[in-house]
Amino acid sequence: MSEAAQTLEGWYALHDFRTIDWAAWKLADEGERAIALDELRSFLSEWQTVEDNKQGSTAFYSIVGQKADFMLMHLRETLEELNAIENAFNKTTFAQFTIPAHSYVSVVELSNYMAQPGADPMQNPEILARLKPILPKWNHICFYPMNKRRQGSDNWYMLSMEERRAMMRSHGMIGRSYAGKVKQIITGSVGFDNWEWGVTLFAEDALQFKKLVYEMRFDEVSARFGDFGDFYVGNRMTDEKLQELFAI
Amino acid sequence: MSEAAQTLEGWYALHDFRTIDWAAWKLADEGERAIALDELRSFLSEWQTVEDNKQGSTAFYSIVGQKADFMLMHLRETLEELNAIENAFNKTTFAQFTIPAHSYVSVVELSNYMAQPGADPMQNPEILARLKPILPKWNHICFYPMNKRRQGSDNWYMLSMEERRAMMRSHGMIGRSYAGKVKQIITGSVGFDNWEWGVTLFAEDALQFKKLVYEMRFDEVSARFGDFGDFYVGNRMTDEKLQELFAI
Amino acid sequence: MSEAAQTLEGWYALHDFRTIDWAAWKLADEGERAIALDELRSFLSEWQTVEDNKQGSTAFYSIVGQKADFMLMHLRETLEELNAIENAFNKTTFAQFTIPAHSYVSVVELSNYMAQPGADPMQNPEILARLKPILPKWNHICFYPMNKRRQGSDNWYMLSMEERRAMMRSHGMIGRSYAGKVKQIITGSVGFDNWEWGVTLFAEDALQFKKLVYEMRFDEVSARFGDFGDFYVGNRMTDEKLQELFAI
Amino acid sequence: MSEAAQTLEGWYALHDFRTIDWAAWKLADEGERAIALDELRSFLSEWQTVEDNKQGSTAFYSIVGQKADFMLMHLRETLEELNAIENAFNKTTFAQFTIPAHSYVSVVELSNYMAQPGADPMQNPEILARLKPILPKWNHICFYPMNKRRQGSDNWYMLSMEERRAMMRSHGMIGRSYAGKVKQIITGSVGFDNWEWGVTLFAEDALQFKKLVYEMRFDEVSARFGDFGDFYVGNRMTDEKLQELFAI
Amino acid sequence: MSEAAQTLEGWYALHDFRTIDWAAWKLADEGERAIALDELRSFLSEWQTVEDNKQGSTAFYSIVGQKADFMLMHLRETLEELNAIENAFNKTTFAQFTIPAHSYVSVVELSNYMAQPGADPMQNPEILARLKPILPKWNHICFYPMNKRRQGSDNWYMLSMEERRAMMRSHGMIGRSYAGKVKQIITGSVGFDNWEWGVTLFAEDALQFKKLVYEMRFDEVSARFGDFGDFYVGNRMTDEKLQELFAI
Repeated sequence: MSEAAQTLEGWYALHDFRTIDWAAWKLADEGERAIALDELRSFLSEWQTVEDNKQGSTAFYSIVGQKADFMLMHLRETLEELNAIENAFNKTTFAQFTIPAHSYVSVVELSNYMAQPGADPMQNPEILARLKPILPKWNHICFYPMNKRRQGSDNWYMLSMEERRAMMRSHGMIGRSYAGKVKQIITGSVGFDNWEWGVTLFAEDALQFKKLVYEMRFDEVSARFGDFGDFYVGNRMTDEKLQELFAI
Repeated sequence: MSEAAQTLEGWYALHDFRTIDWAAWKLADEGERAIALDELRSFLSEWQTVEDNKQGSTAFYSIVGQKADFMLMHLRETLEELNAIENAFNKTTFAQFTIPAHSYVSVVELSNYMAQPGADPMQNPEILARLKPILPKWNHICFYPMNKRRQGSDNWYMLSMEERRAMMRSHGMIGRSYAGKVKQIITGSVGFDNWEWGVTLFAEDALQFKKLVYEMRFDEVSARFGDFGDFYVGNRMTDEKLQELFAI
Repeated sequence: MSEAAQTLEGWYALHDFRTIDWAAWKLADEGERAIALDELRSFLSEWQTVEDNKQGSTAFYSIVGQKADFMLMHLRETLEELNAIENAFNKTTFAQFTIPAHSYVSVVELSNYMAQPGADPMQNPEILARLKPILPKWNHICFYPMNKRRQGSDNWYMLSMEERRAMMRSHGMIGRSYAGKVKQIITGSVGFDNWEWGVTLFAEDALQFKKLVYEMRFDEVSARFGDFGDFYVGNRMTDEKLQELFAI
Repeated sequence: MSEAAQTLEGWYALHDFRTIDWAAWKLADEGERAIALDELRSFLSEWQTVEDNKQGSTAFYSIVGQKADFMLMHLRETLEELNAIENAFNKTTFAQFTIPAHSYVSVVELSNYMAQPGADPMQNPEILARLKPILPKWNHICFYPMNKRRQGSDNWYMLSMEERRAMMRSHGMIGRSYAGKVKQIITGSVGFDNWEWGVTLFAEDALQFKKLVYEMRFDEVSARFGDFGDFYVGNRMTDEKLQELFAI
Repeated sequence: MSEAAQTLEGWYALHDFRTIDWAAWKLADEGERAIALDELRSFLSEWQTVEDNKQGSTAFYSIVGQKADFMLMHLRETLEELNAIENAFNKTTFAQFTIPAHSYVSVVELSNYMAQPGADPMQNPEILARLKPILPKWNHICFYPMNKRRQGSDNWYMLSMEERRAMMRSHGMIGRSYAGKVKQIITGSVGFDNWEWGVTLFAEDALQFKKLVYEMRFDEVSARFGDFGDFYVGNRMTDEKLQELFAI
């Protein structure tokens, strides 16, 4: 038996992807549409209050391509709060104009491959801030889930802690070389959803997603051990863009 | 030919995942909604009576994310009873407001890798209780199906009984270290559904699902031989939460 | 080139899985429902006559779980007859209350791995009876499709006839040890449907499906060479159960 | 780099699988149904004229099982003609009673593994006839797509021309042993659709599909290098059967 | 860690595949259809203006087979512009007669495996033109996504830069031998969509797609390292063909 990596967990995460039912939206009269958008705006404002109170964080992005039209990423203290958010949202008039496209359940995670021996990470305010992060307001988002591979001689979970630590260190160095260009939130989903991790990236320049993920792919930890799910990419939804998106 | 593990079986299990058709629910008038909820409550109360009589057990949980909105897990003596439950449920007005999302058919199973030689397990009241368990009323549920892998040199079914027993022992020790934190029900589905086993976990703290499943993944039996299907996670549905969920 | 196994073929088989459209069934008035059930009963009686005349056989089972609500398994002399059955069924009022869920096209097959040299199997009345079997009226059914694996060093079709025969002999011995408990119909579907074989099992006690399939999985022919599709399990549909199923 | 096999191409092929919307067909009044069938018959007669003029060929078969109800296989000189056929068909009243079930785009192909050195195959009338074949009017059809595998040591495209030629020769000999029983049309779809080839077989006796495909599976080229997609099997649609199929 | 290839990026790409809802189109009255086609034509003309201004490029092709009826490929400077195009399109009356069938998000990419040391590629006008290409008006289009394989000993990302460069050189030589027959646009989608690259080919003669892709498959870089997704093939949509396609 190989030694399991220790992890620290923070807020739970729900990525909620939706497609707009344009036919229904266009059939609705102006009054109905106004009510629906008011509901959405009032939820957005409520979620902003939660964020202002440091009790969670919400990101709202459009998604490019047909996989979805927009995505809401919610961070909250408990699974119950996330469930309450989706149920409340589903009951709105606005939600009746959307079709669920995809979702992902996970929890913000820091692995301690790099932990300093002897230190209690939960006493470290920087680590605490990373476990309960306020999501950045950057132009673009990228989301994908991933597994560490367990296939023949490429079995991550059969490696020694030492081997894994060495590879994760090299991996982390690539990530750090993108500091200021890409902000990365790792969420663990073992036991919660179909992949082992979710990766959410934020960037002002979307090209940096490609640069980062492609460079990492040559890194042994991704090259030999990374299995990736569907990728979603999108643009930040500002008030103005929201207005424009739903204007008929 | 490798020696097959002997297994003991108890109650049959049906995991029944449903999505709420919110558009239809909102279109219905208050009277219809009341009738639908009364039907559901009367089923829940009937199933509670079955459980009180030790003739089965039923768990009711909401599901987080878009995979489903809630899940009913039924344990009964026969496949006929499970089939009767789903047919009766499908005919209710309440069911007309739901969309089938996923299901799983299996039977509570204990493998005797750890059996004491000479002892008749069916004379052991503790084992009998584990074969016909009353499902715990803990805050959270986690469900996933799994196979033992048969791939190249990672072929569980080609190992000797001794090798398998040694690995299962280590696996069981991880499980036991979560005693009091995670309750685990293993159901066998060879011949009944698409995977070989279903795993249903209960916990008061959902994070323990992640801790347990992740720790086990480094164990050789999971690392080399575990293939996993979709994961579902949810929160216990109390009367109060039920009321809240369906309130418009 | 490895020597191909010779096979004997009998009746063609169509497994036809359907889901009941409960919303439509409940919307229909009593008269319509009566007409629909009369149609179904008249088909069942027609198929019984075919079976009485030894010109085919039909089995009717409910299916547990959401994969389907019931399954009709038809055996007939030709693909044309099977096609005529499905087209006639599709035109009934009853069929309008069902949704196709899955189907499988194959032909009853005996492989002659165990054939006695020199004997002409088609002169053997026991073999003829097995090629055109009357389906048993046992309580439970289990259906799954399967392939023999062709992967790296686990390639069934690259083995010599001798190796395959030895493994099939051991496999057959497990099957025979379930005589009286499980009746097995093997249908070949190479060239007809997506897998190489369909396996249909009948048992009075559904647990025997699990026992048999699990025991076989440790047998080299399954452990190294068996790939399995979706499993369906169900209960025999008697007149009484049919009445009960469709009663509102 | 391994030497690519040279290929000869003839007519483009579109396999068009459709499911009948029986609910809509039964809802339509007799006049509508007559118009729809007239349209279909007029297309069939138009396609027959094309075939009589040796400008293409069309086969019309029912499909057994739920994958589709019927299939039209069109051979034409250009992709534009195939596209025009599907668009014209989609605009008919008849097509409104059908649901697209599957399609496949390819081109009739002969590989010259067996080519005689020095000979120009395009001067050979027999070869030209095989590149622009009139589809046989045999009782049964079988269609499936396939790839040559590229996996570890079973990588067809890394073999030398000599190795591939030797295996294709053995493969071809099996095919030839079914002369008169099975007629085989190979269509290439590299660059056109999801698999590398489509295989369309015709036989008077459907059992010959199984015999041929199963025998070939023991041949090294299939055993080690063949990956197969979904199989469709059907019966020839004569005027009489068409009448019967759509009669209410 | 293997050295990552450097890449140059140009315009972002959205491939947008749509299926026509023929039932709705036929139900619409002539006025509605005229409005819908006018909208489409006005978008096409707007996109032509963008192309004339060298601010992007758009290709419009019908698709053969049931995967889709047509495809719009848009190249633009930013993801925001692509998102604006799809949202504006989705709001048209025309779009209400279409069903999203597939999409792909990527960015025009040149890899510098062949780069001349010391030269700054962004100073090379030919390279700049290839990064922001005006899409050719050739008769046919072919689109497919692909990955470089990471499997056991066939792991592209574990090769040295030297090995990869040598294979890419051979690969590029095949491509160049089709100069004038096939024009190829490579778009990178790491971080944007589910595969690592999209390949869009243009040809006057569709057979050249098959010739090129098949010949490349024998090249080691494809034979050992290429994994391919769904293939789409189509014909250029001229004004005349558009008129014909939508005429009832």
